[in-house]
Amino acid sequence: MKKTLNIIPLGGVGEIGKNMTVLEYDEDILIIDCGLIFPDEDMPGIDAVIPDMTYLEQNKERIRGILLTHGHEDHIGALPYALQSFRAPIFGSAFTIALAEHKLSEAKIRDADLRRVNPRDSIELGNFKVEFIKTGHSIAGALALAITTPLGVVMHTGDFKIDLTPIDGEPIDINRFAYYGTRGVLALLSDSTNIERPGHTQSEKELGKTFERVFVAAKGRVIVASFASNVYRLQQVADHAIAHGRVICFQGRSMEQVAQIAQKLGYMRIPEERVVRAEQLKNYKDEQVCVITTGSQGEPMSGLYRMANASHRLNIGKGDTVVISASAIPGNEKGVSRVINALFEKGADVIYDQMADVHVSGHACREELRLMLSITKPRYFIPVHGEYRHLQMHAALAQEMGVEVQNIFAMEIGKVLELSPRKGVCKQTVQAGSIKVDGNAGIEDIVLKDRKTLSEYGLVVAVITLDSETGRVVAPTQLISRGFIYMKDAEPLIAEAIEQLKMECARFEGADKSDYAGIKNAVKSRLKNFLYSKTKRNPMVIPIVNEI
Amino acid sequence: MKKTLNIIPLGGVGEIGKNMTVLEYDEDILIIDCGLIFPDEDMPGIDAVIPDMTYLEQNKERIRGILLTHGHEDHIGALPYALQSFRAPIFGSAFTIALAEHKLSEAKIRDADLRRVNPRDSIELGNFKVEFIKTGHSIAGALALAITTPLGVVMHTGDFKIDLTPIDGEPIDINRFAYYGTRGVLALLSDSTNIERPGHTQSEKELGKTFERVFVAAKGRVIVASFASNVYRLQQVADHAIAHGRVICFQGRSMEQVAQIAQKLGYMRIPEERVVRAEQLKNYKDEQVCVITTGSQGEPMSGLYRMANASHRLNIGKGDTVVISASAIPGNEKGVSRVINALFEKGADVIYDQMADVHVSGHACREELRLMLSITKPRYFIPVHGEYRHLQMHAALAQEMGVEVQNIFAMEIGKVLELSPRKGVCKQTVQAGSIKVDGNAGIEDIVLKDRKTLSEYGLVVAVITLDSETGRVVAPTQLISRGFIYMKDAEPLIAEAIEQLKMECARFEGADKSDYAGIKNAVKSRLKNFLYSKTKRNPMVIPIVNEI
Repeated sequence: MKKTLNIIPLGGVGEIGKNMTVLEYDEDILIIDCGLIFPDEDMPGIDAVIPDMTYLEQNKERIRGILLTHGHEDHIGALPYALQSFRAPIFGSAFTIALAEHKLSEAKIRDADLRRVNPRDSIELGNFKVEFIKTGHSIAGALALAITTPLGVVMHTGDFKIDLTPIDGEPIDINRFAYYGTRGVLALLSDSTNIERPGHTQSEKELGKTFERVFVAAKGRVIVASFASNVYRLQQVADHAIAHGRVICFQGRSMEQVAQIAQKLGYMRIPEERVVRAEQLKNYKDEQVCVITTGSQGEPMSGLYRMANASHRLNIGKGDTVVISASAIPGNEKGVSRVINALFEKGADVIYDQMADVHVSGHACREELRLMLSITKPRYFIPVHGEYRHLQMHAALAQEMGVEVQNIFAMEIGKVLELSPRKGVCKQTVQAGSIKVDGNAGIEDIVLKDRKTLSEYGLVVAVITLDSETGRVVAPTQLISRGFIYMKDAEPLIAEAIEQLKMECARFEGADKSDYAGIKNAVKSRLKNFLYSKTKRNPMVIPIVNEI
Repeated sequence: MKKTLNIIPLGGVGEIGKNMTVLEYDEDILIIDCGLIFPDEDMPGIDAVIPDMTYLEQNKERIRGILLTHGHEDHIGALPYALQSFRAPIFGSAFTIALAEHKLSEAKIRDADLRRVNPRDSIELGNFKVEFIKTGHSIAGALALAITTPLGVVMHTGDFKIDLTPIDGEPIDINRFAYYGTRGVLALLSDSTNIERPGHTQSEKELGKTFERVFVAAKGRVIVASFASNVYRLQQVADHAIAHGRVICFQGRSMEQVAQIAQKLGYMRIPEERVVRAEQLKNYKDEQVCVITTGSQGEPMSGLYRMANASHRLNIGKGDTVVISASAIPGNEKGVSRVINALFEKGADVIYDQMADVHVSGHACREELRLMLSITKPRYFIPVHGEYRHLQMHAALAQEMGVEVQNIFAMEIGKVLELSPRKGVCKQTVQAGSIKVDGNAGIEDIVLKDRKTLSEYGLVVAVITLDSETGRVVAPTQLISRGFIYMKDAEPLIAEAIEQLKMECARFEGADKSDYAGIKNAVKSRLKNFLYSKTKRNPMVIPIVNEI
């Protein structure tokens, strides 16, 4: 039987986040990215959602390497979990590897095999030869992959945009994509995040106009909130600030850490003497200060949030200009809105995305996606990094660009795409899905469902102590509630409920022991009905029958 | 002492929602609007948030009337709660009153004094004379108010936009605003919702181009999701559908109810013979059908959601065109995104706000707000219907437009603005705030805090039964958990935890009875520490000590 090249997405298709793709040929497996998704509001208490990696665990001796396209959480965040099950050398740009290292050290994993690569480096991993290609994204050190396999070249864009005037002066290496395109690309996996947006994503440099205007106008301190990992943004803000005679002060834990890493590795080049610590700011006048901070998503505990709420030494007030250089990630709108209001209340001038160009996307829009298809001319096309509709729309774009419809595969998690030079087949599946991580283990949906119920109405515990011989109640019935009602105001209600329970228990007095099973249900349903009739609330009722 | 005219916002300032303003002169009180806010994600189990109306309850014999500017929930939603505490005649347009009546009847309040008014009607209420003025908004029957008081005229815009080509052919009655402006307006209260947006809100009619394009192109059924109360939108969709030979089928409980009310009152004019029920659709070909449904916010159980998830007789599939004619309200983005993906999976063509003009706002943008200030020329200005930053920005706009800065009052809930012809003073306050309603009563923050804790980690109940003489454990210790861990997989953990508790209890054996109080805390902290060390989770621990 002829060998096939298998492409198996374990995450990042049908969803935005937890990107992870498996490439498989003969005895060799390559993993591209290893990300997580942050939980949404209907997953209370969950720390992260990661891909189900059972298939990799079962085949761990075949894994030749883990390739990281860049250092965002949705590409590296599941590494600490993955490395509990399997190990392999991990490749990425210096910045990506530094972020991965930091993340692993926080999880107390210090023996990972982390390897730095540069753009245009090539490595051999079993049957695969991997070349790393410089791209542009909203983080430094983003790389695409050209993976030469026995059946042809597979290209993976990672997350990318085509920024021809990037802050680091090194645009995406279009020529390298073109090189492979000219020689022939078997399959292209391409970022679908921005497929809904027409045209071309703005260059990071366009924001310079806004920042320049801000620094020209500002009479007091300038505070800019952004994503810590967006080193280009930080560099750009710093450049404008320094040109206007200001010093830079980084605030917020991740901002300080990332700035330090980026400076050390040369991704960010801010003169050391212009970077100061918060406690040094007293030596400067307000018009000499620029603070760059976390908190652009309105996160409580972030730098900006605390500065806006008087719980940070750099309390924001009248005379300060605050730029929120980001747009709200879906789900964060209310948090962002709250922090803007708090800043207005403090009397600051606030500049945010409703009123000025303060943010550009890191993902390619339709015309850039067309360009990628046009220069790589892939035989097979697999849209990745998108929800269902994004993949479908990207598939349609590829067809428009000349990829044959039977060669386009909008995939689902766990499906196995088997490619041969002649055709692609998508029949088999491997175990795959989402693992919700809470503390140090995954969690079952039934447990989450209970949390949801508890969060809506709280609970009432009824403790009834019976003599196991006679069925007689031998200790006072106790009712304990949490999250249901304000107990201090509810004494008459509680007393009445206990009376109800006494009546219910009396029905079972002297009954056969075999009837005891029924008592829990009887107590529960009587209490539930009684409480609902009195309060129109539906708490979880937990009856505990103690037999002595 | 000279009498003052008092303006007291009880809601709708410093927030978007639960609009309610009190006007007070001598012994007379007028109430403008009586709205609610839907709870956000950090208020689990809460049905609604309404204004604290204590001040009105305490002065109920002075209330001369409740004026409703329009029928949205944030203007009429708290009526059922208000009418439990006080009564007064309620005034509004026929449509507003019909919606209020419907809402009250659902709350089993059937004896409210509801009175319909028409634009340009005037009524006298104690010291006040109220004229109702036609405006435009995203609901039919929206009215502004010109309230003549002994000290001058107070104008309240309600929610409004200046749509000069409205679907009902009757634009906002600018001339009436101008009439009062010419004679002299004491105070203007004006909608601040869209103050951040430059220019002028698009006319509802602009959407006609999109709808026409959709109906020209659609080969199968057309399904349009929108807000039920946006009667103009429904009318417009129906007009285009009927022009293309389609019948109209309304789906979703609120949509069917509102359509019926609007048709009956003449706010919507769709030929009866073109409106069909779902079970009649089998008599029509797909290209003769237009369904107008609820669910534009992706709400589970809504018409569109169920059609997209195969739990509705009008199952959406290939050939159908779906228009989501709304934009996501902050907080609903993920729900909307989910329903769009589900529709793509069903193979429908989906048109939504990322890709076409499918929605216009119902609120005035900056140039319209300027116009309102320009024609009414108020002496005092009070921005309403906005969060803190909106009120501040609207205040700045008013200053730009010539209102004197000391006459502009960006208010807080509960503050009393005392106006005299000479000056405005804002010193006193009345009791005010937010009441979170759960079931049939308000709820304390401490109860909500417990719900939040429960939702994050669940709970563990430990029941320990002691002999009250000896302190000896006399029944097996029980551990019950909900929302904490999957119990079936956790038997060893539970067994170990019970062992821990036994050891803890043994410490108290034979101790003085007075030490018993300590046992609860000891059990709780031992169990908490043990469970955290094993799971890295922090459930609520409820120790129950039963003494026999």
